[in-house]
Amino acid sequence: MNADTTSANVPPQPRLIGVGVGPGDPELLTLKALRVLQSADVILVPTTEAREGQVGRAEQIVIDNDPQLAAKIRRVPFRMADRSGVTERRQAAWQVSADVAVEAFEAGARMVCFATIGDPSVYSTFSYLADTVTAVMDVQVDVVPGITAMQALSATSRIPLVLGKEVLALVPATAGDDVLARVLDVADTVVAYKGGRTLPQVLNVIAQVSNDRTTMIGTNLGLPNERLLKPSEFADGETAPYFSTVMTVPVRTLLGEAL
Amino acid sequence: MNADTTSANVPPQPRLIGVGVGPGDPELLTLKALRVLQSADVILVPTTEAREGQVGRAEQIVIDNDPQLAAKIRRVPFRMADRSGVTERRQAAWQVSADVAVEAFEAGARMVCFATIGDPSVYSTFSYLADTVTAVMDVQVDVVPGITAMQALSATSRIPLVLGKEVLALVPATAGDDVLARVLDVADTVVAYKGGRTLPQVLNVIAQVSNDRTTMIGTNLGLPNERLLKPSEFADGETAPYFSTVMTVPVRTLLGEAL
Repeated sequence: MNADTTSANVPPQPRLIGVGVGPGDPELLTLKALRVLQSADVILVPTTEAREGQVGRAEQIVIDNDPQLAAKIRRVPFRMADRSGVTERRQAAWQVSADVAVEAFEAGARMVCFATIGDPSVYSTFSYLADTVTAVMDVQVDVVPGITAMQALSATSRIPLVLGKEVLALVPATAGDDVLARVLDVADTVVAYKGGRTLPQVLNVIAQVSNDRTTMIGTNLGLPNERLLKPSEFADGETAPYFSTVMTVPVRTLLGEAL
Repeated sequence: MNADTTSANVPPQPRLIGVGVGPGDPELLTLKALRVLQSADVILVPTTEAREGQVGRAEQIVIDNDPQLAAKIRRVPFRMADRSGVTERRQAAWQVSADVAVEAFEAGARMVCFATIGDPSVYSTFSYLADTVTAVMDVQVDVVPGITAMQALSATSRIPLVLGKEVLALVPATAGDDVLARVLDVADTVVAYKGGRTLPQVLNVIAQVSNDRTTMIGTNLGLPNERLLKPSEFADGETAPYFSTVMTVPVRTLLGEAL
């Protein structure tokens, strides 16, 4: 299947592949991601403590695209609730995921995928899983990129992320207000992730920089309960779900102004 | 086909759709992009002056995925060589593209797509085309996001763009050395686009910030002549093709350090 991994007599190295499944809309999966998932022996999907026993977002995208893939899916723990730091519980979660992957390889799997919302290269736990697995066995690690939430928010709201010479910055709200303020000072367009719980602070920091910006908040992007909101549509102090994205862009009035 | 655009008796509004076709690898197209392209009446693809009469990158991705789409393709001019500003030639190029779209709608097309490398929301000319068309006729504008070159570079080099609390910034090298230096001061990971011609300066600015960063240069990502290079693999003063991407990330030594 893959020209890059096979030769006639040498068995190919086992492969661990981080597969980005996009922001929520099952159609925003790439052709490559679908092919790789269909070729996999085992597909790991993260499941949060809060939703144990339920189908997670990544799992839903996979089975919406190909219900037959359900048979290959193994749910592994994902700890989203820990605010920061390499907590023991977080390390334990990576270890459990790594153990599931290693067991699959030992049972004969040649290709194990980890399906992750968005892109495995953007705030994903895939890197930690891959580091943990490669510390104990020799596997080839690959990554298939996926559409991120900021791209979905920009497309859905039809507000370009960046034009011409504009600078784009992506900031996790967990980095704190000071970091967000410093970034707003340098970048034209700023996107804040994971800002649901701290939405009032995030909007406050943005408003302090300029009232002339265009700001949009997207929640549950690409899902049936998707919402696109302006800051004025939130009550004072109102928060939003964890998977929220805030985008603020400079005002663009003239055609081609930012070139 | 689209639940959101049809009702029984009202003819749907004509639609102009910016479709991101990804960085170069035809498989990095989304399922949605392929469906939309296949549903379109006309597909506009940008062609540069330098490559007139040749198949451009976006066109190649479209026909690699479905050779039958070639019959719907119209090449429109794209001026990449102008360094900056809203030049008259640039405006003329948008106008030509807009005229082709308007003529297609007037000839009965219900859906016209503009296929763009990467994502229509990230430094694409689609916004200008859409603004020019909507100034003269009533069409619904939509955007289908695509995988960007920075995501492809990160995936191919297996160096995550951002982990934990890291800040990501995307800067067009055309914004100048001062902007790049200011961004490097605030962001953890910085990606510079369009830095081929100015590669020596871009690498120099990065080196001045820190020698401890991991820096990768990707050229022709996703194409047969793709190259991934470290700064040391470039001779002093050597430039790179226009479609080059430079990514510099902080050194990450400990598992989970950036959380």
